[in-house]
Amino acid sequence: MDSYLIQVNGHGDHAPMLDVHLKSTGNTISPGKAKGRKPRWAVRASEMSKKTFNPIRAIVDSMKVEPNPKKAMISLSLGDPTAFGNLPTNDEVTRAVKEVLDSGQYNGYAPSVGYQSCREAVAAYYNCPEAPLKAQDVILTSGCSQAIELALAVLANPGQNILVPRPGFSLYKTLALSMGIEVKLYNLLPEKAWEIDLEHLESLVDEKTACLIVNNPSNPCGSVFSKSHLQEILAVASRQCVPILADEIYGDMVFADCKYEPIATLSTNVPILSCGGLAKRWLVPGWRMGWILIHDRRDIFGNEIRDGLLRLSQRILGPCTIVQGALERILHRTPPEFYHNTLSILKSNADLCYAALSAIPGLQPVRPAGAMYLMVEIEMEHFPEFENDVEFTERLISEQSVFCLPATCFEYPNFFRVVITMPEEMILEACSRIQEFCEMHYQGAEGAQDLECDK
Amino acid sequence: MDSYLIQVNGHGDHAPMLDVHLKSTGNTISPGKAKGRKPRWAVRASEMSKKTFNPIRAIVDSMKVEPNPKKAMISLSLGDPTAFGNLPTNDEVTRAVKEVLDSGQYNGYAPSVGYQSCREAVAAYYNCPEAPLKAQDVILTSGCSQAIELALAVLANPGQNILVPRPGFSLYKTLALSMGIEVKLYNLLPEKAWEIDLEHLESLVDEKTACLIVNNPSNPCGSVFSKSHLQEILAVASRQCVPILADEIYGDMVFADCKYEPIATLSTNVPILSCGGLAKRWLVPGWRMGWILIHDRRDIFGNEIRDGLLRLSQRILGPCTIVQGALERILHRTPPEFYHNTLSILKSNADLCYAALSAIPGLQPVRPAGAMYLMVEIEMEHFPEFENDVEFTERLISEQSVFCLPATCFEYPNFFRVVITMPEEMILEACSRIQEFCEMHYQGAEGAQDLECDK
Repeated sequence: MDSYLIQVNGHGDHAPMLDVHLKSTGNTISPGKAKGRKPRWAVRASEMSKKTFNPIRAIVDSMKVEPNPKKAMISLSLGDPTAFGNLPTNDEVTRAVKEVLDSGQYNGYAPSVGYQSCREAVAAYYNCPEAPLKAQDVILTSGCSQAIELALAVLANPGQNILVPRPGFSLYKTLALSMGIEVKLYNLLPEKAWEIDLEHLESLVDEKTACLIVNNPSNPCGSVFSKSHLQEILAVASRQCVPILADEIYGDMVFADCKYEPIATLSTNVPILSCGGLAKRWLVPGWRMGWILIHDRRDIFGNEIRDGLLRLSQRILGPCTIVQGALERILHRTPPEFYHNTLSILKSNADLCYAALSAIPGLQPVRPAGAMYLMVEIEMEHFPEFENDVEFTERLISEQSVFCLPATCFEYPNFFRVVITMPEEMILEACSRIQEFCEMHYQGAEGAQDLECDK
Repeated sequence: MDSYLIQVNGHGDHAPMLDVHLKSTGNTISPGKAKGRKPRWAVRASEMSKKTFNPIRAIVDSMKVEPNPKKAMISLSLGDPTAFGNLPTNDEVTRAVKEVLDSGQYNGYAPSVGYQSCREAVAAYYNCPEAPLKAQDVILTSGCSQAIELALAVLANPGQNILVPRPGFSLYKTLALSMGIEVKLYNLLPEKAWEIDLEHLESLVDEKTACLIVNNPSNPCGSVFSKSHLQEILAVASRQCVPILADEIYGDMVFADCKYEPIATLSTNVPILSCGGLAKRWLVPGWRMGWILIHDRRDIFGNEIRDGLLRLSQRILGPCTIVQGALERILHRTPPEFYHNTLSILKSNADLCYAALSAIPGLQPVRPAGAMYLMVEIEMEHFPEFENDVEFTERLISEQSVFCLPATCFEYPNFFRVVITMPEEMILEACSRIQEFCEMHYQGAEGAQDLECDK
């Protein structure tokens, strides 16, 4: 309790004189008046709230363009698989929650890290010989976002740094900067199916590096790392003694021709916090059911990190109990066909989209292998009208009413991200409009040179 | 975007030499080796995770006593009205969520501050001429705990201070200290039904005071402030220009003979963030459905605080959507009898408990007027065996298997808190065991003096 002492009265630079004065006279004259101070209303938002900055919001809000009123809007920007109504969750998933509601047994407070039985269910589901898990290795959180927040908050102090993929999901940086943690971006290589530039990654490590974020399968790339590449990443982490924060929210969401390997199954020494949840694979992102799986077979995290996660979880007391209560049923009863069906739709959409965009002059899509995204390079030299990806995607909205997220949102200019969860006919329509747009604005090598000379 | 620049490579004190070396040679020698540094595993939990400290957990965990094996345990410690099964939520509440599940319309991401329609529903429910509310004045959160966290996080910077009631709910301090915010405790007066010592309160204000937390009805006191006392509190806030964070999670939970006044209805100038939620009144604390109501009729918070709350809400993306989706139905369809029934049970339990404990030598209960708690003073001079409330309640467990929370958990030694949500027969049994315990250990004035002389 020693570290928890509180100064009740003013002290030090907190106007001690004033305090004494008031105490001795015991009157009710306001401190302001007594000192001739005139209190004024001046309420400012905290520094932390100002540092909590979502770049997607900032970029998208700054775009402020109107779609073409003659064409219905098609938004390929939001990573919400439920947005188009074509990918409902499975009936067993909703049935499980309804049973929990009927039981009346899951309305009270759960432990802040989740019900023991639900932690057991998640542990049993992800347990495997290469990466064993018990209930105490599972922390349930309010969505994968909170899982990432807690993992970062427990691993890094202000002034330390974390290694984050570029391109990468913007939340890592949003959270880190708000906590005063520095972000160092390591490069992914589009020409190598978005594998990590390992040399660059390792060059960024220093004595202040608190963790390495590995996002696999990837948002925004839709890439899936091979076993051997994951082993190379682990070798860097092991050599440099840097723990891994694995964002595996798209875990198991890979197309038939490749295999998903949870990174923790490939290492016996690197301590790993793997963040996941129901959001994407079970198609219920709004339910805010996430988890951290603690992999620590060499006892490097030890009680230190576990206790830290427990303490941090007490701030907001865990995820909604009626979803927690349904977890075991959801994990066990969801039929395998449901997962297969989702993936076959995503794979078919990915193929369709890749083929259509590949045929468009000036665009270079990168073929995805999982998740629900596809990144497209804009050969900017062929679109001299536009300064960058933000301007390109802005004009795509105003002319064709198609909204793709400029990859500047992911620290990767001159690409844009396409979401591939919508119905087939919508993809075809969107791609055909993108084609019309590009054909309208494309300048061949000569045209581009002409324009150069005009300057 | 200017404020969002990132240093990608090492700089300043981050080993710039090393970085240059690696770049120029382009080899894969690890930086560690290049500098003769031997990386070692040394993963420590962050300072923030260590500063996130729950005093109730620390005190209760340190108690480590076994109940009397001959008596069934009765726990009067947990502020969870669902714990005993005698206070189920209303059928309309669960039905509303089941309808939302069936609709399939609430599985995707909601805006991080909540669905617009749900914010409208909450605004309409709490709107009144004295404190008008619109949808944009409502932020939905993952339980009232997150509402308090966001409100504190937006109002206060590290190094500032907040004014917190003593006795008071421990979460305020847990959150504040983890953010580096100083806590100044103002006194509540048991002899005045736990009204605030206004003079003491005002004496604590200084130029670093970021907000005043007012908890009404009160946990742990079960007290309810009168209109005139709330006006006095507002006068202090107004005179000192200190915004109010009103914890009103027990709002409307007052017994028939008194009236609950939302503090915002009594002021036209003090800016107020009122935190509430479904937890207590609708008896579903596990559902994690909370909200912040922004009252700011003089535009003192302005866009500054609203934008800050919006940015902070993007960290974990709001409460579970299936509960959000059910909010409007829950607020409109829950029959008034449900609330009345809950309150009449609480009132009857409070009366029973107060009467029984009043009759026990050495105890001085304070009559509650709302919420679901009752505070009891231990006349320590009559229990010279025990050093303090922690020891008193420890022995009450080991001898009588009755667990009450020592009020040291609320910064208020020599009291204990009783929860009054359990069935009547359990209250009677608990009170009779407390009586047996006190009679066993009570020392009259002479006995106590004798003991004094023995020293």
